Amino acid sequence: MLLPVILSGGAGTRLWPASRQAFPKPFMTLGGATLLQQAVERGLACGTDDFLMVTNQEYLYLTKSVLKDFSDGLRSTYLLEPKGRNTAPAIALAALFVRKQYGDDAVMLILPADHLIPDTESFVANVLEAKRHAQLGQLVTFGVVPTSPETGFGYIEVEKATRDSQKALRFVEKPDATTAQEYLATGRYYWNSGMFCFTAGAILKAFQAYSPEVLEAAQNAMSSSKTENDVTKFDVHDFSLQPDISIDYAVMEHADNVTLVPAKFGWSDVGSWPAVANGYIPDNSGNTFLADVVSIDTYDTHVQVEAHNDKIVATVGLNNLVIVDTPDALLVAHKNVAQKVKNVVDVLKSRKHEATHLPASVNRPWGTYATLKEEKNYKVKRITVSPGESLSLQYHHHRAEHWVVVQGTGVVQIGEVEYTTKAGEYRHIPLGETHRLTNIGDDELVLIEVQYGTYLGEDDIVRLKDVYGRT
Amino acid sequence: MLLPVILSGGAGTRLWPASRQAFPKPFMTLGGATLLQQAVERGLACGTDDFLMVTNQEYLYLTKSVLKDFSDGLRSTYLLEPKGRNTAPAIALAALFVRKQYGDDAVMLILPADHLIPDTESFVANVLEAKRHAQLGQLVTFGVVPTSPETGFGYIEVEKATRDSQKALRFVEKPDATTAQEYLATGRYYWNSGMFCFTAGAILKAFQAYSPEVLEAAQNAMSSSKTENDVTKFDVHDFSLQPDISIDYAVMEHADNVTLVPAKFGWSDVGSWPAVANGYIPDNSGNTFLADVVSIDTYDTHVQVEAHNDKIVATVGLNNLVIVDTPDALLVAHKNVAQKVKNVVDVLKSRKHEATHLPASVNRPWGTYATLKEEKNYKVKRITVSPGESLSLQYHHHRAEHWVVVQGTGVVQIGEVEYTTKAGEYRHIPLGETHRLTNIGDDELVLIEVQYGTYLGEDDIVRLKDVYGRT
Repeated sequence: MLLPVILSGGAGTRLWPASRQAFPKPFMTLGGATLLQQAVERGLACGTDDFLMVTNQEYLYLTKSVLKDFSDGLRSTYLLEPKGRNTAPAIALAALFVRKQYGDDAVMLILPADHLIPDTESFVANVLEAKRHAQLGQLVTFGVVPTSPETGFGYIEVEKATRDSQKALRFVEKPDATTAQEYLATGRYYWNSGMFCFTAGAILKAFQAYSPEVLEAAQNAMSSSKTENDVTKFDVHDFSLQPDISIDYAVMEHADNVTLVPAKFGWSDVGSWPAVANGYIPDNSGNTFLADVVSIDTYDTHVQVEAHNDKIVATVGLNNLVIVDTPDALLVAHKNVAQKVKNVVDVLKSRKHEATHLPASVNRPWGTYATLKEEKNYKVKRITVSPGESLSLQYHHHRAEHWVVVQGTGVVQIGEVEYTTKAGEYRHIPLGETHRLTNIGDDELVLIEVQYGTYLGEDDIVRLKDVYGRT
Repeated sequence: MLLPVILSGGAGTRLWPASRQAFPKPFMTLGGATLLQQAVERGLACGTDDFLMVTNQEYLYLTKSVLKDFSDGLRSTYLLEPKGRNTAPAIALAALFVRKQYGDDAVMLILPADHLIPDTESFVANVLEAKRHAQLGQLVTFGVVPTSPETGFGYIEVEKATRDSQKALRFVEKPDATTAQEYLATGRYYWNSGMFCFTAGAILKAFQAYSPEVLEAAQNAMSSSKTENDVTKFDVHDFSLQPDISIDYAVMEHADNVTLVPAKFGWSDVGSWPAVANGYIPDNSGNTFLADVVSIDTYDTHVQVEAHNDKIVATVGLNNLVIVDTPDALLVAHKNVAQKVKNVVDVLKSRKHEATHLPASVNRPWGTYATLKEEKNYKVKRITVSPGESLSLQYHHHRAEHWVVVQGTGVVQIGEVEYTTKAGEYRHIPLGETHRLTNIGDDELVLIEVQYGTYLGEDDIVRLKDVYGRT
């Protein structure tokens, strides 16, 4: 039994404006698929159809919509965190859940959902090796062979400067440049990848030994959790009582049964825009363009555009920049200081700017919406509804809505009456009237919504019925 | 009699994407007003209420909408060029027109509409001096005292290295860097500003002497022109027979009665993005931000945004860049090579890309429109109609239209029926049905239009009646 446990609860800020609080790194597309899809594919390649997803409750439907694209054979269960904690509580909860479902000997493969690992074959070989160690009671960590004196990662020290699996001596924090250089020279240090492999029994035993307070808090949170079908939700209070601590601090630094398996595969944690650019094959000038770009005298520059139209980008006389354009935010950054993008996000958060939270296209359990235009008394949105899906039965206190269907066929309920509405047709929803929209066709339904009223916030929705349990 | 003749027919490409073929430099806002407005204000400051506007017929309503903002006292007449020619034909036509209206002695003040001259007082003093010379039969050119060995301007040589008005000896073309340096050192060279002052009689006499073929072609074009109210239009064929030649080549280089008046005022022809940036007061880091910018380690950078929403721009680790963002095109350029923006426009033109021609918000005689979203079978536009204005009575072969009014009050005619339609109300126009929209309120009318059909090009408009003569 090998169970991939995919951690996707964190909100990356260094890839803003492509990643947002409501649309974090695992959901970003890189090399043709989202990072989460790629993590799931790696798990499948290891020969398992079962997954445990540990994610923030905000990302449940986003995660489900990613997994929906896989074959029916894939089974996944969800542990939904009501707020961001850290890796120790997430792994403790996962281990308690796995032990209950599959017993002490089930092998857990901890995979962050936001890594890039192009070489699946080597990955699988490494995982099978890790599994053998795990089944002997070891806590296995995957160490990445350093290629540069990176100061952005933690390191793991081993005894021998060989590339064999061996006992991990020490976990050390992100070093300064000099120390990183020393680590690199010894050949006895690996980057800490954040991927682990162990049995549920072994990791729980280690929690008991080195961080009993984390285990106890996790047990407490688990005992007040509620499971419905494939989803387990936690009580906010009990969940919050868990310490905000990483698995490295809580367990790995202390345990004496940690085995390091050197990764044979290329690896990136996609922790910054230059790392994203490195994920693509550059043109002859070193540029990675994911957009319609007219470039003149431009080198080593990454351009990425997400727009409501066929937007053109012109670059003239640029070197080593990152340009990321979205409908509501534009980033232009030098690659050498691209990690300071997180400072931008901090500034925007302090201003409570929406561009840190919502992506240009917002995912909902039933589909997506994007705001095309907003002024004082009106807002224009493009809304998509997936086949068979349905918005909640709802009304608004402060706005009327006008819907023009431009693709697909839906049923619009207004008050007690239902109207079948096809592309090219429209419906008007007076202020205060209950309404609901369901896609009854086989294709995506697309509609243009014009809201008109004195207050247009997303919180002016009174939900009467909702198939996704949001009432 | 002093008559400002404002030339605004040219289409600047070096300020793309803010300037477009359908929205050239004179209509760009710089320092709170469009450059055209500023040119008119300079004329008014010289004590005249009469203007002659020489512009492309494509810019008539755009120009009128700028002049509408001035007091009722301002009178302007229009010479509409059916295509771009050059300054010699434009000035010859203007001189013929002025002589016919006001006689040989009327003093013409030739002002390009796309210059920046912050110091109006000095400008007026210079103009009054120029007028005195003009009334003595001189052709007056305004020379700008060079502040650097600029290679982007033509130069005018005088005899004495003083700052007095004196005879212009020689007009010379854009020099190379070494020559420009020599010019600067002598103190006897001025930048050719493109502004002139002369009587209609004097300039026509000079045309007769040095370029009779230009004069003859202009007379021919004038004789087949048609004047209706304040607008004179030319026959395309006769207009096109005029030589494409500048006033410098045609007349100024040859005439021996040219007086140079040294400009006492600061001057910029706003010929590139760095010149635009220089028109603003920089912050402590040398940045000129015309947008909501979060900047980190950013210096001497110009940011300008035109968006459908409150778009945020983040700059990290940048030096000496120009960033201009519009809904359909983004430019990021190093200031040192910003003149290569015209190469970008050339590339886009060869691709027949719409972003070279139309601005994000397109001006019409009745108001504006902006495309918010376009996909295969539908297009969403924001349309504004000025008070009292009216779209043509029209129908479409390939699309239905749906209108939701979000501000103001209009009358929507559909077929033979007229519907008063207020903010919050909507009208549906079936495919093929004649329709018209008139703003009957005192405020701007704003509506969201959803077009739905198999073909959505701007050319699918059959105009039946049009108050602007476009049927």
